[in-house]
Amino acid sequence: MSVSQLHQRLSETGQCHLLQFWNDLQEEEQLALCQELQAMEFKELNLFFQRAMEDFNRSASQEKVDARMEAVPREVLGSITRDRDRLQEWQKEGFLQISQNKVAVVLLAGGQGTRLGVTYPKGMYDVGLPSHKTLFQIQAERILKLEHLAEAQHGKKCTIPWYIMTSGRTMESTEQFFLKHKYFDLKKENVFFFQQGMLPAMSFEGKILLEEKGKVAMAPDGNGGLYRALGSQQVLKDMERRGIEYIHVYCVDNILVRVADPVFMGFCVQKGVDCGVKVVEKTNPTEPVGVVCKVDGVYQVVEYSEITLATAQKRTADGRLMFNAGNIANHFFTLAFLRDIVNIYEPRLQHHVAQKKIPFVDTQGRLIKPDKPNGIKMEKFVFDIFQFAKKFAVYETLREEEFSPLKNADSQNGKDNPTTARHALMSLHHCWVLNAGGHFIDENGTRIPAIPLLKDANDLPVQCEISPLVSYAGEGLEMYVQEKEFHTPLIIDENGVQELMKNGL
Amino acid sequence: MSVSQLHQRLSETGQCHLLQFWNDLQEEEQLALCQELQAMEFKELNLFFQRAMEDFNRSASQEKVDARMEAVPREVLGSITRDRDRLQEWQKEGFLQISQNKVAVVLLAGGQGTRLGVTYPKGMYDVGLPSHKTLFQIQAERILKLEHLAEAQHGKKCTIPWYIMTSGRTMESTEQFFLKHKYFDLKKENVFFFQQGMLPAMSFEGKILLEEKGKVAMAPDGNGGLYRALGSQQVLKDMERRGIEYIHVYCVDNILVRVADPVFMGFCVQKGVDCGVKVVEKTNPTEPVGVVCKVDGVYQVVEYSEITLATAQKRTADGRLMFNAGNIANHFFTLAFLRDIVNIYEPRLQHHVAQKKIPFVDTQGRLIKPDKPNGIKMEKFVFDIFQFAKKFAVYETLREEEFSPLKNADSQNGKDNPTTARHALMSLHHCWVLNAGGHFIDENGTRIPAIPLLKDANDLPVQCEISPLVSYAGEGLEMYVQEKEFHTPLIIDENGVQELMKNGL
Repeated sequence: MSVSQLHQRLSETGQCHLLQFWNDLQEEEQLALCQELQAMEFKELNLFFQRAMEDFNRSASQEKVDARMEAVPREVLGSITRDRDRLQEWQKEGFLQISQNKVAVVLLAGGQGTRLGVTYPKGMYDVGLPSHKTLFQIQAERILKLEHLAEAQHGKKCTIPWYIMTSGRTMESTEQFFLKHKYFDLKKENVFFFQQGMLPAMSFEGKILLEEKGKVAMAPDGNGGLYRALGSQQVLKDMERRGIEYIHVYCVDNILVRVADPVFMGFCVQKGVDCGVKVVEKTNPTEPVGVVCKVDGVYQVVEYSEITLATAQKRTADGRLMFNAGNIANHFFTLAFLRDIVNIYEPRLQHHVAQKKIPFVDTQGRLIKPDKPNGIKMEKFVFDIFQFAKKFAVYETLREEEFSPLKNADSQNGKDNPTTARHALMSLHHCWVLNAGGHFIDENGTRIPAIPLLKDANDLPVQCEISPLVSYAGEGLEMYVQEKEFHTPLIIDENGVQELMKNGL
Repeated sequence: MSVSQLHQRLSETGQCHLLQFWNDLQEEEQLALCQELQAMEFKELNLFFQRAMEDFNRSASQEKVDARMEAVPREVLGSITRDRDRLQEWQKEGFLQISQNKVAVVLLAGGQGTRLGVTYPKGMYDVGLPSHKTLFQIQAERILKLEHLAEAQHGKKCTIPWYIMTSGRTMESTEQFFLKHKYFDLKKENVFFFQQGMLPAMSFEGKILLEEKGKVAMAPDGNGGLYRALGSQQVLKDMERRGIEYIHVYCVDNILVRVADPVFMGFCVQKGVDCGVKVVEKTNPTEPVGVVCKVDGVYQVVEYSEITLATAQKRTADGRLMFNAGNIANHFFTLAFLRDIVNIYEPRLQHHVAQKKIPFVDTQGRLIKPDKPNGIKMEKFVFDIFQFAKKFAVYETLREEEFSPLKNADSQNGKDNPTTARHALMSLHHCWVLNAGGHFIDENGTRIPAIPLLKDANDLPVQCEISPLVSYAGEGLEMYVQEKEFHTPLIIDENGVQELMKNGL
């Protein structure tokens, strides 16, 4: 396509300002811009913008979502604390499906660690565990272990394929990281990388913004970009080829994530749902977590910023918050449901509008860093498609066992940072050892209480890390720890028990 | 008493090593040591030691407390979330008692801010609120406000006397601080300072330890030292003189404490109990908080370090932790009960043994800083006397409304530090404004959601501080905020509404 043809397309779609600095550009800059713009579907983009803004303005004038919210009914809910007699049965179902190669895992890893303060993908982050494993490695090893557990139960080899969604910004470094680490002993052919789409940022008038004279301001299209990518990048095809039926979708930043959790998968399979979600109980009305509920009769996640305080504070007769199903980005889908989403429903969904401060080049060619929102990014969310489920279920688990996201750099208010993630994992593994009959002793040989005495603000939890290759969720530790006493730090991995400090030395 | 008489007393009680460096001391050091030792009851101390150690060894050999624990029965419990229809009635009762001058407050403030990293009493700490009020000032103003509210309801002036327990280490600075701040507008005669006792640290063999050649290693006798001090320092007498009937005891470090909370006081009065405790729900099994429960049929607090993980993880059919009544050091007593405690029961209680690393002077006169526990401190706890209650009640409130203790210096894991305390108070006051019909707007004039969007790790909560002189627990704010929009930081105090930043300037 020639530049004049491109100019014509841009003119027809109201975006020809994108070439306004053409004559200022070096030849290779011109080439790069040309390529970038030629790949864009401006008519579609304008349509996205128009529909997203219509929806945004309609929401603003519409009745508040609060009045239309209903809590998740008990019969739709499975709870780790209230349905304890069912857990084994669900787990058994989950392992059965895994052993039959029907379960796959989709990892949402398109984000960069901007809030975390790093320039590489979050999955490559080392939170400072004794083993210094990264989030990617921990998750890979959990998949391996699950395969082994399912094999042991059902007597045949099986595979849980892992589909990793990156973005334009993280694809290359993610793939190289896995290559360098030999896919953490997973088979290369069972790890599938694909990219979510990018969309240009736009002004409030629908003009695409330039971040440099020859470069469009682009942003990933939200984790709901998953669905478009599943189709466009042949992920669904690969799943079909393998005979996958059930898919677990989760987000990279949760250090405690139970990848392809057989209990959750089995629960959803037995419930016969096409779409399920794992939640933790929200206990404080103002906790910033989205809640799963019904709105106008269909399930959705209402984001924390959309809810009024009065609604957030509502309680049921048993004292719990009425809207307490805290979304932790853990989803179950059947392949049949995903196929319909990709082919039929997702294209009908409009994007959400996020008003942002977007650095841009003005008509004089100066880079402006605005101090007020000056434009929008368009995103879809992974949970936008709940509304299309024919049957839906919610599984409530325990935060301390399954959810500790890594979002921020370390700071004084101690929320969702490397320290809290590291402590959450070690506290959980400490509990696993105690529940398997082990004990920890201090430097004097005295047993440390199950809940250790705090001596000062910098007290560490009991230092204990158990490799996912040894235990997926606390099982199988008796042979290592029962009736034994350990100094800390304690590591149990594929080489056995490692007490890093023997007898206080 | 001459030195030789003192020597004789020490010899008779096995403590004459306390004079081993007598000849090395300067004259004034000799005088000081002499005075210190003459004030000690060595026979009693030896008895304390003997009984505490017996109890300590008995506990170690005894059946674990776990097997003897029973949860608080529902009929003993009043809950802010499960008894919402009763709250008004309880509050009314509480205000009635306050208006009749029957309610007093006892503050436990004997500790130093060692873990907090300061050398002065914690009550003098400024957590960095917009107003820079100290914990003492916040609490004083809550008392003032309660008096005004009770007056307004019942049409006559009333007083809530405030009894402040300090220790040898904090008495002088506390009194001076109040004097300097003119008792924060409370009447001087209604603020009563008294001191808890000190006890010497002892070796495991029962020998009193020296921290210098001429100075005994002393430590406060635990917050349960309250009861002895109530008698010895004439506090009970003063309460009797005033006609006090109901007493609220609390700890200085909780920035959200509802001093003399009329709902809690009224609940206990209506229940007709002699002893009550306010708790928050423990939701994570390994949270380091003591739990109120029955042991061998009587109420007590089981400390977090005494419980096994299996017990901590037990749940009832409704999914809650079975032992979830988290102790937050908020107690209700009748004066009659306290009188019995002081005169009859407390002297029968043995001290708890805390094994500690205690710096001491060895027989060669060298200061040794041990790296293992080398001796004990003897303490009683304020909740040790629950077992003597004829009728007991538990009131469950919400952590986010009433409990945020200041224990540690700021650190990465963000637990109970100045930042969390400040944020807890401002988040609560933000909710008060919203519940009273006010709104916050950002620098662009856009309304901030009730649960604000988090942008990064250092995001502040909405900056909002309401003086206790304006509102005790969120009441009475409509006249200031209803249907109004505010920029942050917002302060509402006795001078009215102060927006520190108008229109983003």
